[in-house]
Amino acid sequence: MRRGIYVGRFQPFHNGHMELVRHVMKTYALSELLIGIGSAQVSHTAHDPFTAGERFEMIEAALRSEQFSNCRVVPIPDIDRHALWVSHVASLVPPFEQAYSNDPLTRMLFHEAGYETPELPMFNRGQYEGHEIRRRMVDHEPWEDLVPTAVRKIIEEIGGVERLRLLTGSKEAHRLERHGEG
Amino acid sequence: MRRGIYVGRFQPFHNGHMELVRHVMKTYALSELLIGIGSAQVSHTAHDPFTAGERFEMIEAALRSEQFSNCRVVPIPDIDRHALWVSHVASLVPPFEQAYSNDPLTRMLFHEAGYETPELPMFNRGQYEGHEIRRRMVDHEPWEDLVPTAVRKIIEEIGGVERLRLLTGSKEAHRLERHGEG
Amino acid sequence: MRRGIYVGRFQPFHNGHMELVRHVMKTYALSELLIGIGSAQVSHTAHDPFTAGERFEMIEAALRSEQFSNCRVVPIPDIDRHALWVSHVASLVPPFEQAYSNDPLTRMLFHEAGYETPELPMFNRGQYEGHEIRRRMVDHEPWEDLVPTAVRKIIEEIGGVERLRLLTGSKEAHRLERHGEG
Amino acid sequence: MRRGIYVGRFQPFHNGHMELVRHVMKTYALSELLIGIGSAQVSHTAHDPFTAGERFEMIEAALRSEQFSNCRVVPIPDIDRHALWVSHVASLVPPFEQAYSNDPLTRMLFHEAGYETPELPMFNRGQYEGHEIRRRMVDHEPWEDLVPTAVRKIIEEIGGVERLRLLTGSKEAHRLERHGEG
Amino acid sequence: MRRGIYVGRFQPFHNGHMELVRHVMKTYALSELLIGIGSAQVSHTAHDPFTAGERFEMIEAALRSEQFSNCRVVPIPDIDRHALWVSHVASLVPPFEQAYSNDPLTRMLFHEAGYETPELPMFNRGQYEGHEIRRRMVDHEPWEDLVPTAVRKIIEEIGGVERLRLLTGSKEAHRLERHGEG
Amino acid sequence: MRRGIYVGRFQPFHNGHMELVRHVMKTYALSELLIGIGSAQVSHTAHDPFTAGERFEMIEAALRSEQFSNCRVVPIPDIDRHALWVSHVASLVPPFEQAYSNDPLTRMLFHEAGYETPELPMFNRGQYEGHEIRRRMVDHEPWEDLVPTAVRKIIEEIGGVERLRLLTGSKEAHRLERHGEG
Repeated sequence: MRRGIYVGRFQPFHNGHMELVRHVMKTYALSELLIGIGSAQVSHTAHDPFTAGERFEMIEAALRSEQFSNCRVVPIPDIDRHALWVSHVASLVPPFEQAYSNDPLTRMLFHEAGYETPELPMFNRGQYEGHEIRRRMVDHEPWEDLVPTAVRKIIEEIGGVERLRLLTGSKEAHRLERHGEG
Repeated sequence: MRRGIYVGRFQPFHNGHMELVRHVMKTYALSELLIGIGSAQVSHTAHDPFTAGERFEMIEAALRSEQFSNCRVVPIPDIDRHALWVSHVASLVPPFEQAYSNDPLTRMLFHEAGYETPELPMFNRGQYEGHEIRRRMVDHEPWEDLVPTAVRKIIEEIGGVERLRLLTGSKEAHRLERHGEG
Repeated sequence: MRRGIYVGRFQPFHNGHMELVRHVMKTYALSELLIGIGSAQVSHTAHDPFTAGERFEMIEAALRSEQFSNCRVVPIPDIDRHALWVSHVASLVPPFEQAYSNDPLTRMLFHEAGYETPELPMFNRGQYEGHEIRRRMVDHEPWEDLVPTAVRKIIEEIGGVERLRLLTGSKEAHRLERHGEG
Repeated sequence: MRRGIYVGRFQPFHNGHMELVRHVMKTYALSELLIGIGSAQVSHTAHDPFTAGERFEMIEAALRSEQFSNCRVVPIPDIDRHALWVSHVASLVPPFEQAYSNDPLTRMLFHEAGYETPELPMFNRGQYEGHEIRRRMVDHEPWEDLVPTAVRKIIEEIGGVERLRLLTGSKEAHRLERHGEG
Repeated sequence: MRRGIYVGRFQPFHNGHMELVRHVMKTYALSELLIGIGSAQVSHTAHDPFTAGERFEMIEAALRSEQFSNCRVVPIPDIDRHALWVSHVASLVPPFEQAYSNDPLTRMLFHEAGYETPELPMFNRGQYEGHEIRRRMVDHEPWEDLVPTAVRKIIEEIGGVERLRLLTGSKEAHRLERHGEG
Repeated sequence: MRRGIYVGRFQPFHNGHMELVRHVMKTYALSELLIGIGSAQVSHTAHDPFTAGERFEMIEAALRSEQFSNCRVVPIPDIDRHALWVSHVASLVPPFEQAYSNDPLTRMLFHEAGYETPELPMFNRGQYEGHEIRRRMVDHEPWEDLVPTAVRKIIEEIGGVERLRLLTGSKEAHRLERHGEG
């Protein structure tokens, strides 16, 4: 088995994430790709509107629609101690060799712990960013083409856009967003 | 028994909160009103200067001065997982049917969990806000008329205004304010 | 104000607890008695079958039936660090002078922290003990006369005896009982 | 989608678990079965020798060898508050309708939260129990036929039997086993 | 610098611990020995009567009386996740090469993480054990000769024997002892 | 024994900290100075780049180069409940009489708990500040003269400046910085 892990927050899972999955599956000859849902315990904030369960469902639906059968979605709650975070991930999932991320911190932590952390291409960065997609949702701009069709459907079913707009108007949601796992 | 719950941070308990208590007691024919002190574990920050115990004492004194005998004050520590917060509250207090709040997130969480969350009137919003009252304390402006007399006395006894001014000058207090419960 | 605090687990609240409330209210001329529900976060174990909310309701109902109007019920989650526990309690409730308990550890902690901890009479100890009442429930022996009528009614309404019997047969319930809050 | 969830500790995953997976997949016409690894944060104790990652790998290997393609393995860390546990699980995984377990507590918690909790047949209970398999490992008795071949191989690769024997001789391992996650 | 670490609970620090310190300082040519106080957050139980601060003072006093100047005492709170414990220790103290312990679990965890874990001689095991010393204190048997003189003095000053006897009679102390930090 | 405690985050330990150590050792006739590494669990953020272990090593090396032999370095993890923080510190270290800090919150908490908190001189404040030193590292300006030589060497050995620059470019590092330990 040759496994890699890709950790993100996926708020929501968008076309840039999908491109990255296609890229690493093709490039690194993986027998299995672990997709770790980071900050799994966080939801209902303007920065992290969706629960881990909702994100799990979005990712699964998107992968199914492209017949990816050797990806495994895994919720990863924060421990908020960077120095232990890689040990935490490694204790929750089967052994892996490579870790993928566009975030410098995440790559640094995996690298310091001895994992391979290959450089990745940027897929239309700017547009394909969670922050930009959430902004469009709040500002009533088109966002639907930036996520896989299967993801769009789930967001509509759960009233995700309305939830996000309400959260954006809540002082507590902003305040709590800054809180750790607790 | 017909119970409702009103959750706030009460930093400090002010006239707007008192109005809301009067309003829901009169309007909804409650046999008991639970008053939940939110973020009970937080204190000594510029945003949350008072301990849960101090807030408990303020609320009790204010209620006593108006002879409200069927209100029950309950400290509610954060769990910082929004998706579990209502279950957390429900596990700590007797069963209730209605939940009151002016905050969109809090109302959304109770609503998603199946509780009644009636719309509330705004009582002189702007003036009667914790943020505005704390700002006046720091800036040496009059704040005393915005809180019940009993609350004012307790704040004076515990040196609350001096504490708040000191906290506003502390980098650590601002930094730690952003931390979760831990 | 002259306040005392009485902390127990109240699994369930029984006649011995009721006697103690009567005793301290009469003996110490309190203007208010705080009744702290200890281990508030624990429930659904053979040792702690009831939630804090259920115990809150039991205590309130029992006090109401005897017209005790100056008792305040407060859930106290564990912090499982004995050296901080009294500071934890003191941060959650209004200031108090005396603390009551039959448990040597609890008395020691309050005493080391400088509170008065008067010796209490034993009210029919052996019979009036949570452990004995739970044992009778499991073994189909009469338990109803050992608790206030109001408590008995609530236990029957929530199916408390059936829950306890199921829990007694669960390995996980026994195992988890030994866990801290986490 | 029609989903069910089966939560266990799987220390280790044995033939009885495998039988249960086969049974519910066949009986309840599920489009997906979630397999929740309970107490995911616990490892290296005499009661819970294997990490969640090791258990994940065992379960995956066993399912692969029988070509089960619509099972999803999910680590579930404890929260050690029974009253919130089902909300915790529900926040981490896609929506499900049924929950399976042989443990009375687990069934009770899912049932109280409104999920279907069908009765399950017992598959050679006594032999197919984690406790019995761990005892045989410690006592140098045959245990290999009680687990799927793929599981046996992984236990041998990671030196699982030697680890368990060492843990059984450690006072700290026994003491810490009783601790929650912290 | 050549550093080693010796982790124990030290309830209390006794002659066996002192022998081990002498042995490793002499045998392994260390420039510094870290002495980690394990389960630093636990106190006031029959199994762990002393706070980390009290144990810190005992160890320092004992080392001072023998002029050990290159030992560093460090409180190590539990994290109760064995799979992360070594990373936790390593993040709190300067880099070390060797780890010493008589406990099989502790040695296994350091060994799995790649540290040297030399075998140690047993110094009069049976007598020089925390458990035996606490038992003698409770049973009014002589214990004073089993600990360094400096330790005996501190235990007497803080009333340690009386505390331990009280804790042994407390149900809550036994119950809470089994809890993690939470 | 006359002990004082000086708590800081020491990100990194700089000349201003060193001045303060010299000042209190000389002024208050201490037999021992405890140096508490605050927020010990935090690392790998733009605000807190170094682990407690790395800070421990820096402080030790700086003290050794000036022959301070009666200072004791102690990592202090946050508990993020200000009302309990002093009890937390006191439970981890030997008894002390004085507490030193330039931060108003820290001084307030020790003062409220009954400790002496003498006013301290400001040593070239502005230059000797962690924030300023980290800014210079990121902006490629000279920082080396603001810290003890021994500290500079360790920062270079561990690649501290490169780490800090990477962290400054990471969104997650900024986001996580705001999280508590959880």
